[in-house]
Amino acid sequence: MRSVLAFGEVMMRLEVPAYATLEQSRTLHYLFSGSGVNVLSGLSKYGYSTRLISKLPANRLGDAAQAYLRGLGLSTSSILRGGEFMGMYFLESGFGVRSSKVTYTNRKESAFCQSQLEEYEMDVLLAGANWIHFCGISLAVTPNVREIVVALAAEAKKRGLTVSFDCNFRPKLWDSYAEAKPWYEKMLSLADVCMISEQDAIHILNWETKETDREKQMQDFLPKISETFNLSVVAGTIREVAPDGHFLKGFVLKNGDMTCSKSYRFPVLDRIGAGDAFAGGVIHGVLENLSSQETVNFAVAASVYAHTTYGDSPIAGLKEIQEWMESSFREIER
Amino acid sequence: MRSVLAFGEVMMRLEVPAYATLEQSRTLHYLFSGSGVNVLSGLSKYGYSTRLISKLPANRLGDAAQAYLRGLGLSTSSILRGGEFMGMYFLESGFGVRSSKVTYTNRKESAFCQSQLEEYEMDVLLAGANWIHFCGISLAVTPNVREIVVALAAEAKKRGLTVSFDCNFRPKLWDSYAEAKPWYEKMLSLADVCMISEQDAIHILNWETKETDREKQMQDFLPKISETFNLSVVAGTIREVAPDGHFLKGFVLKNGDMTCSKSYRFPVLDRIGAGDAFAGGVIHGVLENLSSQETVNFAVAASVYAHTTYGDSPIAGLKEIQEWMESSFREIER
Amino acid sequence: MRSVLAFGEVMMRLEVPAYATLEQSRTLHYLFSGSGVNVLSGLSKYGYSTRLISKLPANRLGDAAQAYLRGLGLSTSSILRGGEFMGMYFLESGFGVRSSKVTYTNRKESAFCQSQLEEYEMDVLLAGANWIHFCGISLAVTPNVREIVVALAAEAKKRGLTVSFDCNFRPKLWDSYAEAKPWYEKMLSLADVCMISEQDAIHILNWETKETDREKQMQDFLPKISETFNLSVVAGTIREVAPDGHFLKGFVLKNGDMTCSKSYRFPVLDRIGAGDAFAGGVIHGVLENLSSQETVNFAVAASVYAHTTYGDSPIAGLKEIQEWMESSFREIER
Amino acid sequence: MRSVLAFGEVMMRLEVPAYATLEQSRTLHYLFSGSGVNVLSGLSKYGYSTRLISKLPANRLGDAAQAYLRGLGLSTSSILRGGEFMGMYFLESGFGVRSSKVTYTNRKESAFCQSQLEEYEMDVLLAGANWIHFCGISLAVTPNVREIVVALAAEAKKRGLTVSFDCNFRPKLWDSYAEAKPWYEKMLSLADVCMISEQDAIHILNWETKETDREKQMQDFLPKISETFNLSVVAGTIREVAPDGHFLKGFVLKNGDMTCSKSYRFPVLDRIGAGDAFAGGVIHGVLENLSSQETVNFAVAASVYAHTTYGDSPIAGLKEIQEWMESSFREIER
Amino acid sequence: MRSVLAFGEVMMRLEVPAYATLEQSRTLHYLFSGSGVNVLSGLSKYGYSTRLISKLPANRLGDAAQAYLRGLGLSTSSILRGGEFMGMYFLESGFGVRSSKVTYTNRKESAFCQSQLEEYEMDVLLAGANWIHFCGISLAVTPNVREIVVALAAEAKKRGLTVSFDCNFRPKLWDSYAEAKPWYEKMLSLADVCMISEQDAIHILNWETKETDREKQMQDFLPKISETFNLSVVAGTIREVAPDGHFLKGFVLKNGDMTCSKSYRFPVLDRIGAGDAFAGGVIHGVLENLSSQETVNFAVAASVYAHTTYGDSPIAGLKEIQEWMESSFREIER
Amino acid sequence: MRSVLAFGEVMMRLEVPAYATLEQSRTLHYLFSGSGVNVLSGLSKYGYSTRLISKLPANRLGDAAQAYLRGLGLSTSSILRGGEFMGMYFLESGFGVRSSKVTYTNRKESAFCQSQLEEYEMDVLLAGANWIHFCGISLAVTPNVREIVVALAAEAKKRGLTVSFDCNFRPKLWDSYAEAKPWYEKMLSLADVCMISEQDAIHILNWETKETDREKQMQDFLPKISETFNLSVVAGTIREVAPDGHFLKGFVLKNGDMTCSKSYRFPVLDRIGAGDAFAGGVIHGVLENLSSQETVNFAVAASVYAHTTYGDSPIAGLKEIQEWMESSFREIER
Repeated sequence: MRSVLAFGEVMMRLEVPAYATLEQSRTLHYLFSGSGVNVLSGLSKYGYSTRLISKLPANRLGDAAQAYLRGLGLSTSSILRGGEFMGMYFLESGFGVRSSKVTYTNRKESAFCQSQLEEYEMDVLLAGANWIHFCGISLAVTPNVREIVVALAAEAKKRGLTVSFDCNFRPKLWDSYAEAKPWYEKMLSLADVCMISEQDAIHILNWETKETDREKQMQDFLPKISETFNLSVVAGTIREVAPDGHFLKGFVLKNGDMTCSKSYRFPVLDRIGAGDAFAGGVIHGVLENLSSQETVNFAVAASVYAHTTYGDSPIAGLKEIQEWMESSFREIER
Repeated sequence: MRSVLAFGEVMMRLEVPAYATLEQSRTLHYLFSGSGVNVLSGLSKYGYSTRLISKLPANRLGDAAQAYLRGLGLSTSSILRGGEFMGMYFLESGFGVRSSKVTYTNRKESAFCQSQLEEYEMDVLLAGANWIHFCGISLAVTPNVREIVVALAAEAKKRGLTVSFDCNFRPKLWDSYAEAKPWYEKMLSLADVCMISEQDAIHILNWETKETDREKQMQDFLPKISETFNLSVVAGTIREVAPDGHFLKGFVLKNGDMTCSKSYRFPVLDRIGAGDAFAGGVIHGVLENLSSQETVNFAVAASVYAHTTYGDSPIAGLKEIQEWMESSFREIER
Repeated sequence: MRSVLAFGEVMMRLEVPAYATLEQSRTLHYLFSGSGVNVLSGLSKYGYSTRLISKLPANRLGDAAQAYLRGLGLSTSSILRGGEFMGMYFLESGFGVRSSKVTYTNRKESAFCQSQLEEYEMDVLLAGANWIHFCGISLAVTPNVREIVVALAAEAKKRGLTVSFDCNFRPKLWDSYAEAKPWYEKMLSLADVCMISEQDAIHILNWETKETDREKQMQDFLPKISETFNLSVVAGTIREVAPDGHFLKGFVLKNGDMTCSKSYRFPVLDRIGAGDAFAGGVIHGVLENLSSQETVNFAVAASVYAHTTYGDSPIAGLKEIQEWMESSFREIER
Repeated sequence: MRSVLAFGEVMMRLEVPAYATLEQSRTLHYLFSGSGVNVLSGLSKYGYSTRLISKLPANRLGDAAQAYLRGLGLSTSSILRGGEFMGMYFLESGFGVRSSKVTYTNRKESAFCQSQLEEYEMDVLLAGANWIHFCGISLAVTPNVREIVVALAAEAKKRGLTVSFDCNFRPKLWDSYAEAKPWYEKMLSLADVCMISEQDAIHILNWETKETDREKQMQDFLPKISETFNLSVVAGTIREVAPDGHFLKGFVLKNGDMTCSKSYRFPVLDRIGAGDAFAGGVIHGVLENLSSQETVNFAVAASVYAHTTYGDSPIAGLKEIQEWMESSFREIER
Repeated sequence: MRSVLAFGEVMMRLEVPAYATLEQSRTLHYLFSGSGVNVLSGLSKYGYSTRLISKLPANRLGDAAQAYLRGLGLSTSSILRGGEFMGMYFLESGFGVRSSKVTYTNRKESAFCQSQLEEYEMDVLLAGANWIHFCGISLAVTPNVREIVVALAAEAKKRGLTVSFDCNFRPKLWDSYAEAKPWYEKMLSLADVCMISEQDAIHILNWETKETDREKQMQDFLPKISETFNLSVVAGTIREVAPDGHFLKGFVLKNGDMTCSKSYRFPVLDRIGAGDAFAGGVIHGVLENLSSQETVNFAVAASVYAHTTYGDSPIAGLKEIQEWMESSFREIER
Repeated sequence: MRSVLAFGEVMMRLEVPAYATLEQSRTLHYLFSGSGVNVLSGLSKYGYSTRLISKLPANRLGDAAQAYLRGLGLSTSSILRGGEFMGMYFLESGFGVRSSKVTYTNRKESAFCQSQLEEYEMDVLLAGANWIHFCGISLAVTPNVREIVVALAAEAKKRGLTVSFDCNFRPKLWDSYAEAKPWYEKMLSLADVCMISEQDAIHILNWETKETDREKQMQDFLPKISETFNLSVVAGTIREVAPDGHFLKGFVLKNGDMTCSKSYRFPVLDRIGAGDAFAGGVIHGVLENLSSQETVNFAVAASVYAHTTYGDSPIAGLKEIQEWMESSFREIER
């Protein structure tokens, strides 16, 4: 059983039920997630051994988060415990033409965001693993975490793990694109596999294209990214959002083979984490040595499916996704 | 007030709320249903005296089921009590392109499925009734229940009750279509009224048709079924399923008059039991001596409406359905 | 900060959750609303000082209602307390093609509906206010409330407040259109601003038009209403209802300038109170001295947005509505 | 199976969960009860055929109430339907030293309280019954219901039914004890069996006693009541209330034999309806021809047990109560 | 109507329902409270005009908190808005011999704890008020809030407001008693009324006593405190905690008159905020010019009662508390 | 980190909330437990590596159970997957003098109860473990499980694991004590550590004692059991049950040293699994080489504490229990 690591923050999500706002309700549903958690949750359901590298506070919230992650199938043996706080976000779900609203607590004070490079024992953390995944959010939160990301990626690469990096740019966490640029370039150089959008290429890498159509921009940028940063796999999606559903299409360039999935149009139950489901699907495709086309088909299907399940973390197994891909829509399985 | 009987199992439905899965939730909503229960629930709302012939365990679950059925308007005086278990199913509701998933407990060990013919006192059970309804699920569950179905139907026919039979084929409960064929033929021979699909004719009865269009297959098969088995009424629906709603169209052949309803396209709240609502509508049409066209119109409307109400058992009365049929969609009734 | 008053009943709404009926559930969600409450709730979120003139029973239900209204941002200092009862309505939410159903308790016996003109101290109630809003429901409930409406409106006009009147005709509360006609004419004569539909003009005012198209009827009637009753602003909407969403378009005639908004098509979470959101939007437009076009754009946007939020009372602030108007649909704000 | 009738109002109970107040919550739990409902609910669980004579509004609330009562095991075939309203009460549960608070809606306007004698067809209603039960609340609500109570009791007595009457005096529903006195005397004269407290004798009947101890007062009054009104059975309880539980002791005089139960001390889950459980126990004792001692033992046990179950209506069967009486406290039955 | 101010932080309480832990649940109940909020909530129910001086973040959490406080009856016009975060605490309720557990988020980063003296406009904030209340928690959180507390108290005293101070020492928020001592002495010097315990005197003030009995220590310290700091009123309680309930006794020294209440023993629903209920009771006693004995009786009754109501903030009115004090325990009020 | 195994069934618990019955509710809370699960849950919180040997159905219920167990901290790598069904029980919680009621589904048909010895690969399952725990329920359910228990215990003993056995006799699962006797004797012979009650000695082992007092019977039997079956540790508790709480006292004989704990009296939140908490405490005592007195003190404290936490499975860690033992009751920890 191959072993996949991810590095990233664990956050508590506190969601107002039934489309009400924080002013209207008295009740919240909560769960624990994070970009790394979500990628590993999907991979765990596909049968991989998964382990999260993170830090949780040494209190009841940290205990609850740890139990939740174990329930998702992740090993929590590489989660440091210490400090007092964890990042949280409140989610007021939108309806139809009304957007969802996310309100964060002070995540920069979290045990994870305050953790220091020297707390992470590379030898122990990386032992026995085949793959390690990072995302752009970790790169953004605090200088010390940024440092840990680069150090872990470099060390992992040195030890022969495959390194994947999901650009996942969050504008509010950076002062400017220019601030982000060197760090993204560093991580793209260290990575073997990356998930990136045409927007990332334009804004973060500050690249230009003559194309105005988003699909063509993707087709333009993906090979350049692969070449520039010596990446074996580059993947991304184009999403369009409408009140009654989303459109999603995936692109994968693998060993020079550039392909795209068919387009999906579908209603959305829970949007958060669906990008991580795509990343997990790509990782699975590479680990299983699927073709470029098989990889993008699976990764997009995993992502579409994740839009229809509750919570941030993908919960569908290989069989469930594959049956859904192969068969037409079935109403009730009994 | 005319009295309608149905024979069938009572099952406990345990539903994960809010589109979550069993892994994600800590809470279930439950109710009690079953094909016979659902048919009678609708007929009870239309003003008929309804009585279920079944068996429930002699414990708290049986008590709770009995109370629930009384709340639906069914007489429970013909429900045997004894044994220990009842059939249950867990429902994880799908969303959009994701299907619902049903997980059964060991229903074959239920008090009903283990009940024996000699426990059922024909004289008492059939006394004072005008109609008795059966469905193909009862025919499938266990050999002893299969025997009871046929014996009850034969005895009811002898005593002058109208016998209806809803084919309602469940592939997982039979080893093969061939195993089912003689039993279905037996029940169709005993019945005066049946609900059947073109798939049932092709697969169970092993009939052939030159038509490839489903509607034309229905129009081809219904008269043949009526003639072959000497049925006064044959009815069925064609359903198509899409993530954003269902399409439904009904067909009724009554005393040689073959008609169909208009097609409906509608979003679905709760799919289970909507076929039973159609069966109940057909029974109402026959008991009220409605025309073939009035019957199919009402039965399909009852079925469409049942897709929009919570739970397996239809809960709308005659007035509610008729107002809905007659008027265009009204938003709030106040 | 300008001060807006409204006169109207506070009602308790008791809603069956999750699309179930009163027979199927054991749980209700409740809140407190009313046409005047809803108009003021929206205006309170836009930054106005709002005060409701009403009467609540001197018991725990009245206490709970008062606390709820304060939570919405209304001043409750002009709410009389006394009597025993309050109006309530039970809401069974429809789904898709199934309509919502509202069942009222005996609201005519409520503390508000039984209140007498002499309980209302004009000097205190109207002090310091710029605007007072009334609606046709108050005109309908009981003779004494009808008398209070007209007396308050006349007194407010005399003191220089702007008077607005939303026709809001409820057929079940009147014996006939003829009974309503003189009272509506009286209120339109006292008002400076009114919200009215083409149906109101045809049925209540008993006016005729050659137009058959609803939009053209609006364009025909609005200027006539403005002239006949000497109203500076006349506004209204045309709504069409379909199972998968509503269509809404607004019309405003302001100082002779007749304009309409664009048409919206949108899915609906909670329909009740969306007309009050439109009224609040019109009042805001007049108080801010917006153009006719700006007024109708804002008022319709506020109304569409209110269809997507839980509860009867609009809860969105100026910034939230304006951002929604200006930007295309955004999925998650984080 | 002997058939027991009761006459009385059906009320909707709306309860704030988890000890919160109406100001603090957004959710209510609801059920339907009433003194007659509660007595019959218990008797239904003991195996009697039970039927309620009442009136419910012809709307969704009436439908929901009827379904609930059927779920309790009552026949609803003698419930008139018509009118618009039903009585309701809001329950804010006390905790420890804090009392529960009940807030009523306008029950005097309910379909039941407004029903007229001529709506009740004696021949149909009383047919086939062995017993009819009344309570003092029905005597109090409105003059027309008062008239129905007396007429039904007289007619029942004439037809040979046993008549029971639970004094159940509610001070807030009467102007004075003096107003109640002639009506209580009338009902005591018509009854064969009554439930009464020493307080009722002192305040309503205006009787005197030299005893100051409540138990001695009971022992003093019960024989006098039996003689004065020619009652074969007179029963009552003495209750004392403390924050951590209640004390209860029962008294029964049957055919001249005066006995009392042992005293119970017990914590209370739901107090409402426990007096009706005692009345039901007494009725069972008389119908089963139990001795005076057996009757009071069972009736008090049924009442104590009803304090420990959720809701107003007793839900325990004979076996459950008898096992509890016979055995010492058992922790879990598995 | 006299106007009472309080200065203090507003916190979000997130409570796991039904005695579960954060690991076991998926749901939280939330509300907003704080020591100042609680004191004003009680006073608001007694009929005073109440206004909180605080700061809330300029986001959806701040909006929700503001709406909640208005629902409690507080004016929120003196609450600054700005910054991003608010203090939160998670509550896992104990049961029987198991203690409740509180886990805080990083409250020191809250908008309130980071607010600066210059943001508070004394002229506006103190205008029209008769009284201002502070508590020891505000003194503890951050140096800037500590500075605001002292400045506000001094300014209020100068303007003739009565100043009250509840010592409310929280060991975890201070490095040592010695660190707290000068600040407590400063506030006691500025205050007219204080709430203090014998433990505060011993540990914070570092006073000595020969008494070992807690009651005698109180009687020893209270006059000394009054003299030393020139306080007109000094009040405190002695609490003892047992699994099945608490014991509470109050002490008030007012204008040299030292009295105590009777002792109460009672089961507890919600402990948090009961000390603030005592403080509010003392303030009421002083504002109403009640005697020392009346004051302590009322304040302790208000505190005991607050242990029996849900939430941190007292919700009982004068009438409710006084009826409870005057009458023996009543079971249901209907 | 020492590794502890347990063998036993995983059951689904479905609990009616808020003291209602299955007839009264529409909602259930569910979790997964079992005697082995509970023992390991406690040990996992104490820091041991824990692994359950069991079998779960290859469906969504099995998935949900597996996720739940991982959340408790158990390794699920030794849980076989296959078959269709799992054991379930419905829990209706008692209140005060009313007992809880448990209703089982057909557990004998569960994947676990139908599993065969040959499915269990001893080499894999027992590898790396220090201890294995069994309980009498596994011995009772089906002949094949009985066989597995004995085979696993024998094999474990052979490989040098410590074997513990909790007698945990369930009368309903055996035909007679005589049927159980040889199997219990077999397991006691194989075990190194056992948990047993004086009732087990009398009824199952058919031993006699002159003592009539339960404590003295324990003191009489424990040494005999130790000698007869060559057990290094024998432990047990005496429990007495009353409506307002339980009494518990523990006994441990370890290496010839017979001691008992102090007696506890405490209110109970959730009784199920508290015996397993005692067993886990004893195992901890032995693994940590605690003295006889320390072991019994800790084991009883763990058991008492488990009565106060929600769910079957102990959730308290070492620190939490030890702090509770050492300190007097603390009300809120903040």
